[in-house]
Amino acid sequence: MSARFAKRMDSVHRSFIREILKVTAEPDVISFAGGLPNPALFPVKEMSRAAAKVIENDGQTALQYSTTEGYAPLRQFIAARYAEKKGIKVEPDEILITTGSQQCLDLIGKVFIDPGDKVLIERPGYLGAIQAFSVFEPKFETIPLEEDGPDIPDMEKVLADDDVKLYYAVPNFQNPSGLSYSEEKREMTARVLAGKSTIFIEDDPYGELRFLGQDKKPMVRGFLPEKHILLGSFSKIAAPGFRLGWIVSDNATREKLVTAKQASDLHTSTVSQRIMHQYLMDNDIDAHIERIRRSYGRQREVMTEMIGRYFPDSVDCTKPEGGMFLWITLPEGCSSMLLFEKAIEHKVAFVPGKPFYVDGSGDNTLRLNFSNSSEAIIEEGIKRLGRCIREFLAPKTKSPRPVAASPQTARESHV
Amino acid sequence: MSARFAKRMDSVHRSFIREILKVTAEPDVISFAGGLPNPALFPVKEMSRAAAKVIENDGQTALQYSTTEGYAPLRQFIAARYAEKKGIKVEPDEILITTGSQQCLDLIGKVFIDPGDKVLIERPGYLGAIQAFSVFEPKFETIPLEEDGPDIPDMEKVLADDDVKLYYAVPNFQNPSGLSYSEEKREMTARVLAGKSTIFIEDDPYGELRFLGQDKKPMVRGFLPEKHILLGSFSKIAAPGFRLGWIVSDNATREKLVTAKQASDLHTSTVSQRIMHQYLMDNDIDAHIERIRRSYGRQREVMTEMIGRYFPDSVDCTKPEGGMFLWITLPEGCSSMLLFEKAIEHKVAFVPGKPFYVDGSGDNTLRLNFSNSSEAIIEEGIKRLGRCIREFLAPKTKSPRPVAASPQTARESHV
Repeated sequence: MSARFAKRMDSVHRSFIREILKVTAEPDVISFAGGLPNPALFPVKEMSRAAAKVIENDGQTALQYSTTEGYAPLRQFIAARYAEKKGIKVEPDEILITTGSQQCLDLIGKVFIDPGDKVLIERPGYLGAIQAFSVFEPKFETIPLEEDGPDIPDMEKVLADDDVKLYYAVPNFQNPSGLSYSEEKREMTARVLAGKSTIFIEDDPYGELRFLGQDKKPMVRGFLPEKHILLGSFSKIAAPGFRLGWIVSDNATREKLVTAKQASDLHTSTVSQRIMHQYLMDNDIDAHIERIRRSYGRQREVMTEMIGRYFPDSVDCTKPEGGMFLWITLPEGCSSMLLFEKAIEHKVAFVPGKPFYVDGSGDNTLRLNFSNSSEAIIEEGIKRLGRCIREFLAPKTKSPRPVAASPQTARESHV
Repeated sequence: MSARFAKRMDSVHRSFIREILKVTAEPDVISFAGGLPNPALFPVKEMSRAAAKVIENDGQTALQYSTTEGYAPLRQFIAARYAEKKGIKVEPDEILITTGSQQCLDLIGKVFIDPGDKVLIERPGYLGAIQAFSVFEPKFETIPLEEDGPDIPDMEKVLADDDVKLYYAVPNFQNPSGLSYSEEKREMTARVLAGKSTIFIEDDPYGELRFLGQDKKPMVRGFLPEKHILLGSFSKIAAPGFRLGWIVSDNATREKLVTAKQASDLHTSTVSQRIMHQYLMDNDIDAHIERIRRSYGRQREVMTEMIGRYFPDSVDCTKPEGGMFLWITLPEGCSSMLLFEKAIEHKVAFVPGKPFYVDGSGDNTLRLNFSNSSEAIIEEGIKRLGRCIREFLAPKTKSPRPVAASPQTARESHV
């Protein structure tokens, strides 16, 4: 008799971030750890009205089983929006509605990854993707992210033998770093990928949350042809509780993804899809997104300003033009895992960077979320964190320190 | 470079039933093919009110990300209901809310099945489970179902070497057969499983839809201890469009399932969970289930009576005490795949039995759904099907017949 649990589960672990959120949930802790959109901006009244209307008027359909592909008018809305906002051509039939964009990653893993297949991700990389793909036992390769996107010579090297199955990327306001691919890096990436069998997976949950600079064309169908895959989500532009994401892919891939989705959950909540569609029909989503942009833009502004004021000069910080995160680099040799313990004592929290590196590096980095705190809270929290970092970097604090059991254990499981 | 798609997808195919439903969707076809609950019984007004109320009053939480385990008060409701209705002890913490009970099957496959592991299912067996487990490349074993449950000597034989990882079963009003495990067969099954490492997976979406006879104790925690797993669903007692199911398991297993669920879709729609919970708080679900029972009971009664009147005596039919399906056995050597084509000509549809058999047998069986047709439609549809079967069984129709391309192809993919 084999072991009780399947071997694949040895390489998958509970999300470090979700574990950390438990530590930071105490009411007097200011937390920049979570990756939550600001619930004060949720269109609560509009959603309540949309829900009552669509269930009352079309309940026998809105509460029933539906197709695996997703609600057709919702897919039409998404396709039309790609044409209007991004200038790319996507057919409604090429869109598969998923249970959040996390499910996109699970389905892609199921459909593409054989054990040992090479999967290229960014360094640092999105934790949800690392977790979802790990179930299917790939071999991860990484490319470092620079201020304007991936390191191109590194990319050429890792793709040289054409033995990389997938290249997963978040080109706009990446989680965790907040960094984006410049126009030039997009072009260069497309040139490196041309003629390779590698499939580029472009995850774009934050693309519409731009508060500075110019919108960029999507990689997929902007710089790269149809065989590549584009992911989207309503979580950051409307609300995440619906669990509504989507995959854009060519027909052969969509066929496989639909089969995998049937086996996974039959279809995404009809109720979620219908309420969201009703909301989109009855309201101006662009005006709503503009409110989010303005608010997050101010919050990021305040956070950057406070970091300038309270952090020592030896600490680096990214300057994202959108999204929800800032990325901090401490001086070489400083451990953000150890800083985390200190920060909790100072009643302020963040996510240490190491879990975002599959190669075990990145211990001197950390992620700050600015979307889910008011400007006043950001000011107070960054002041606390600045004080904490200064103490941490001061010579007298360099003596050996005890290691916190829970985050350390969880981190090890991700290395 | 390896093949474009992962090897595991070679053994998974689009659901035959979902393909068949396209053929049967024409408005003049009477379809007993689908497995849909009757939407005329959905509590539409109550759900509309619950949705408006919970989003309006608690929108910032109801539309936000939530925990992977599921909404705590909903898990408390389910646990309390097990105590009250089934007399078994389940802690809220032992319950994981899933995106429909189809996701239970996916998570179980992920967490337990290594390629080549033996998985025991019923013959005929539930297609959704065959599909979900196939992704993880098990070796299926089968036990024939008799009128009162599994064939015990067969079970003893297949479990003798203690090398079967999972035994998946639907002990109440099974899909597709409508058959149930008797009290005696439950006891005998538990006795065979005692001391084996095999984990029994009890799927119970229909258990509350009993219109005749006495309720049975669940296998898991009724006849079998904690290490076994129990699945539930709101799809048949409230509405399936929410995609709300659950898994009851011991703590070690739940830990693994939660990790797998984080990687799969983070958590089930908060919106779905909150609306369902609000509905359950503000309404009498027992009174609602009683309405479903009475209605399905009458529909099954009419279908059985009409079969007695219009089908030839050589055709057998199960007499389920609940659920949504009847199971028909044609005389040996008759193909329900061929009958299906004939039936479509007669403007009546069913699901041929063969896809429910992983061993390629069962070609003389078929499934009829009675939950989703009015009594008048059932009368007319069974009359048509009876005429069709009589023609089909008459000697003159025994000449070689052409084989329909689409269902035949789809069927082959399931054998």
